[in-house]
Order: sequence, then structure tokens, then C-alpha cells
Amino acid sequence: MTDRYDAEALSDFSRKLFGAAGMEADKAAIVAPLLVEADLMGHTTHGLQLCGPYLGALENGSMLGVGEPEVVSDRGAVVTWDGRRLSGVWLTATAVDLATDRAEQYGSCTIAIRRGHHIACLAAFLERATSRGCMVTITSSDPDVASVAPYGGTRAVYTPNPIAVGIPTDEDPILIDISASITTNGLTGRLHGEGRKLDHAWVQDAVGNASNDPAVLFTDPPGTILPTGGKDHGHKGYGLALMVEAMTQALPGFGRADPAQGWGAGIYVQVQDPSAFAGREEFERQTGHLARLCRDNPPAPGVTSVRLPGDGALGRKRKALAEGLELYPGIIDVLGTWAEKFEIEMPAASA
Amino acid sequence: MTDRYDAEALSDFSRKLFGAAGMEADKAAIVAPLLVEADLMGHTTHGLQLCGPYLGALENGSMLGVGEPEVVSDRGAVVTWDGRRLSGVWLTATAVDLATDRAEQYGSCTIAIRRGHHIACLAAFLERATSRGCMVTITSSDPDVASVAPYGGTRAVYTPNPIAVGIPTDEDPILIDISASITTNGLTGRLHGEGRKLDHAWVQDAVGNASNDPAVLFTDPPGTILPTGGKDHGHKGYGLALMVEAMTQALPGFGRADPAQGWGAGIYVQVQDPSAFAGREEFERQTGHLARLCRDNPPAPGVTSVRLPGDGALGRKRKALAEGLELYPGIIDVLGTWAEKFEIEMPAASA
Repeated sequence: MTDRYDAEALSDFSRKLFGAAGMEADKAAIVAPLLVEADLMGHTTHGLQLCGPYLGALENGSMLGVGEPEVVSDRGAVVTWDGRRLSGVWLTATAVDLATDRAEQYGSCTIAIRRGHHIACLAAFLERATSRGCMVTITSSDPDVASVAPYGGTRAVYTPNPIAVGIPTDEDPILIDISASITTNGLTGRLHGEGRKLDHAWVQDAVGNASNDPAVLFTDPPGTILPTGGKDHGHKGYGLALMVEAMTQALPGFGRADPAQGWGAGIYVQVQDPSAFAGREEFERQTGHLARLCRDNPPAPGVTSVRLPGDGALGRKRKALAEGLELYPGIIDVLGTWAEKFEIEMPAASA
Repeated sequence: MTDRYDAEALSDFSRKLFGAAGMEADKAAIVAPLLVEADLMGHTTHGLQLCGPYLGALENGSMLGVGEPEVVSDRGAVVTWDGRRLSGVWLTATAVDLATDRAEQYGSCTIAIRRGHHIACLAAFLERATSRGCMVTITSSDPDVASVAPYGGTRAVYTPNPIAVGIPTDEDPILIDISASITTNGLTGRLHGEGRKLDHAWVQDAVGNASNDPAVLFTDPPGTILPTGGKDHGHKGYGLALMVEAMTQALPGFGRADPAQGWGAGIYVQVQDPSAFAGREEFERQTGHLARLCRDNPPAPGVTSVRLPGDGALGRKRKALAEGLELYPGIIDVLGTWAEKFEIEMPAASA
């Protein structure tokens, strides 16, 4: 049987690791549980797997562990920060909290952040706003990384450009976390490392032939990940990707037009308070009804039941909180080498 | 050779038709050129093809041609209207203009509208905001119509739920107009009427088998249009569709939880002024650079060149303005019967 861990013990452990690597205590206390949250939700490429790389970035100075973002502009309902390469996870969580406060005041608040470090799992931030009755949208891109080509093209221009949306209902929130490309850098990298193939032809080689082999992304010149909609209707993913580029780079004012600064993120957070529109109760009456129309839908052949986005993640989280969290193979070993270096005790595992 | 029309003459003609059917002059003067704009851009299912149905709706009272929306709430950066079944085209254009004024003041403005009538072509509204240097997002849904099933399901719950985004650059704006389903009600209806098939398996029959025949949408029980991403990764279109439902029905407070009111739309408009973020010049420096990275991209096999969303539409518009507009077959005949009824002179055609 695979080892299981107590989520709180994992948070505490990784909080200590970040602290030992130079991250301020208040920041480590936010970043660590958000990585664990991603693992709890089943997003295993965007949880504690990132702890090691983040510790490395803190050590070499490419991630800043201390200080505050610079306020580029603040118009109340609209805020722009220079993230100064602070932890993107901390910046995003802080932005969601501030945008929710501001949305309660202005009805809506948008925060655009340039020069953040990597932000990990977008879905992990959503309940911070939905638990307060607000709708939240988070998008990010990395202006230093390109793995997806524009529809019809072959040379990578942008990142998978995720879009996450949290929608409160009168029951569980709807937690959407999708990207503008069919698959992600994290998954293709992991499968390539394991010598495995993708389920379908979700990538293309360097001249534009569709493929299910992530190895085509690692040739010289490299292939690219196909946009959402693929060869058939990838203009839709292309459109979404451009929208995310504008939100996360053009609005905050740092992007692909600038010299590379290393692994990082442009970040966009928007929170809207239904009570400033037609009312919170009315909002949840509509979204709850919609959720039930979906869950009660007769499934297609091969489908057990129709789920809402977030149902799977919330179910995995509840199970892992009750029974302990199984980490994806290899993650705990990497953390072990850091624990040894910093002389921090490993969390106890139960089988 | 197909007949060609002067765009201004078509606008003037349809403006008179709307006026004769009881629409206020100031509204007809906005609605008519926006339908022509859709035809100019090549969106022929969402331009003057809708003029006849709109005239019918004005006559039977299901579209209101006179009056103003009721202001449900106004918090400056956030506005909610009850559209009272006024023309959705007029409501949307008015909302884009107001949201742009407000965005200049607050940085961002969101307007959610319930109980509008149908809004036609989303792309046609975008340049109203981009020409003023602003980024604009428009989404809509029809709570009375269901043609798309949730991913994995078989019973229609919602509409294709389009999302349009206008992004200014230092050259032409990027004009995105996509939907959360692979194809639309308009196109499947037209092809079915003409006895034609879809390019690929973009729909499914009533039990969930993928098909390229739009006829499966007209059986009893009916099939459904597949979400963006199709059977392969349709959870992405599903997520987008739910986001649009929340924006266009839950925020303004009228939706599928309410009794049917006939053909109409929930509408969501958001405008953001880059000058309230990191500045307009900075915004366009990034988006212009991005646009050139896309346009200069080496094309995949079978692709002539990589285009930006909107490039095709803006090219068609320039050509049609210079050489005259060819209408899709059948449209002018329908308008002819209305012209005869209202005793309005037909626009002159040139071959």
C-alpha cells in the first residue's frame, strides 16, 4: 500500500522547508498549504512536486521570499502590482483576498500582477473567494516560456495559459480549471520523463504533424502542444490564449516584448460580488439550478455520471482529509533530500 | 455574378424597416448598422438574416422597441439592468458605450443585463471599445434555449454561449469571437435546412453518439451540439459554458431557474481601460509584439499563413466596403417581403 500523510503535517513540513530556504514566515504559512491543497484536489503536477523547484529558486535568488509587491497603480476597483519576483502562490492568494475585500466595496475588483514567480495550481485559490459568496477568475501565463503555437502555426509563442473560475452555488462551488491548450507543460514533461504516451494526439511535431508522443516537444527544433480544440477547432483555444496573454502581460505591463527574467508568471485575478449585481441569493438560485441540470443529466455511452467541474477535486480532497493523502511517486523522495539539507524532520507516513 | 450592396444603403434600408415595425428611431439607428456590420465581417448567420425574425418579434410584441432598461443596481464599476425584452443589439451596444465611459473613470466596468432580446453578432460590438483603446469582453446566453449538453451528458442544458473579446494593439485590434460549443445553433440550423453535413463530428445524437449530421439535432428527443474540445477534451468547453451561464444569468438575476419568456438573452459586458493598469502604450506594446509573433509563425501543412482572430473579418469588411457587400443567398428575398409590407424602397443592387 502507498504511504499516506496527514495534510496538516505536510503543510507544516513544507512551511518549515520554505522558511529554511529564506521565505518569510507569513508567506510560507500561505504557500505551503496551497501546494498541499493542489495535491488534495488531485492536481499532482502542481502541488508539492513544485516544492523542490521553488526551494531551488529561493536559494538561487530567482524567487524572492521577502518583501511586498510594488503598487504600480491603484484605482480601487483596479489594481496593478509589480510582483518583484515574489512567490506567485503568495501573490495570487494575497490578490484573491484583497480583490474579494474590494469587490465587497466596489462590486468588482481586478488585480493584474507582473513579474510574479510561478503560481502553481489555480484551482487551489478559488475557494478563498467562493467561500465568501464571490465569483472569482484567475489566469496566468509565463512570458519566458513558450510551448504552444498559434492555431495553424508551428513555432511556440505562449504557454498553456490556464483559466480558473470559481462560482458559488447553493451547494458545493463550481471550480473550473482549464487551459487554452489541450494538455499542459507539467503533464507532457512528466509523461516524457516516464517514457509514456498521451491519450490522444494532443501535440504536434516541429513541422506541424499531430502526435500522441510528448517526445516531439523535446526535439530541436521542438514541437508544440496543440490548442484547445486541436487541429479541428483550435481557433477557440487560440482565442482564449490571446485573451489570457492580454490579461496577464499587457494589462500589468511585462511580457514577451521584454527581455527574459526566468521562470515566472504574469497573473490576473478578478473577483465579483453577486450582492452588487442582482443579489447573492438570486445568483446561487441560478447556479444551483444549473448545477442540478448538469448532475442529473443522462450520461453518454461509457460515462458513469455527469459531474460538475470541481466535483472530482472536492471529492478527492474530502477523502484525502479523512484517510490521509497519497503523494504522487517520487515527490516525497525529493522533499527528503531538502529535509536532510535543512535538518528538518520528515512528516510521519501511515500505510 | 452575385448582387452587391452598398453597406450604408443596407443600413438605411433596415433602419427604416425597424422603424416601420415600431422601433424608436435612435434604437433603429444603432441596431441596423450592427447587423450590416456582422455581414461585412462575414458572420452571415448573425447579420441581416436576423432582420426578418427581429421584425416579427417587434410585431408580436416579444421584442420591445421603445423605452429604457430598468436599472437594478448601479455601483459605478458594476451595473445591472433589467432589459425588459428590449432589442439585445441595442442593449449591448449601449452597455459597451457606457462601460467604456465608466472604465475610463473606474479602470473597469461590468454590466450584467437580464431579459434582453437576442444580441446577434458579438464580434460586431468589439470595435466600439477597442477604437477607444479599451479591452472588452462580451458574453451571452439564452436561458430559454438549450442545444448543448454538459460534457459526458446527452440532454441539452444550455446554449453555445459565445465569448467575444476585443484587444487593442498598435495595429489592428484582435477580435476574438468563439463559443463554448464546437458549432452554433445558427450554422447547424442553416446546414440542416440545406440538407448539408458538418465538416466533422461536431454534434451527437440523443443517446450520445458523435455525428456530422445536423439532422440529429432535430429528432425527438433531440441530439446536442458537442462542447468545445468535443468527445476528447470537452470538459474545457463545458467549463467555459458554465462560466458564461454564471456571468449572463446568475449575475443579472434571470435564468434557467425561471419560467420561459421566449427567445432572448442574458448579456454580460466588461470593459477595462489599460491606462488604469500599466498604461495604454505599454498594453499595446505587448499585444502588438504578440500579434507579430503569431502572424510571422511558420504555418503547418495545409495552412497558408497564421492569422490573428479578426484578421479575416476585418479583411472581408474592408473589401465589402470598397467593392460592395454580397449577402448570403435568401436574405434579400426575406427582407423584400417586409419592404413590400411596409412600402419601403429596396436598396439598389449592383452586379
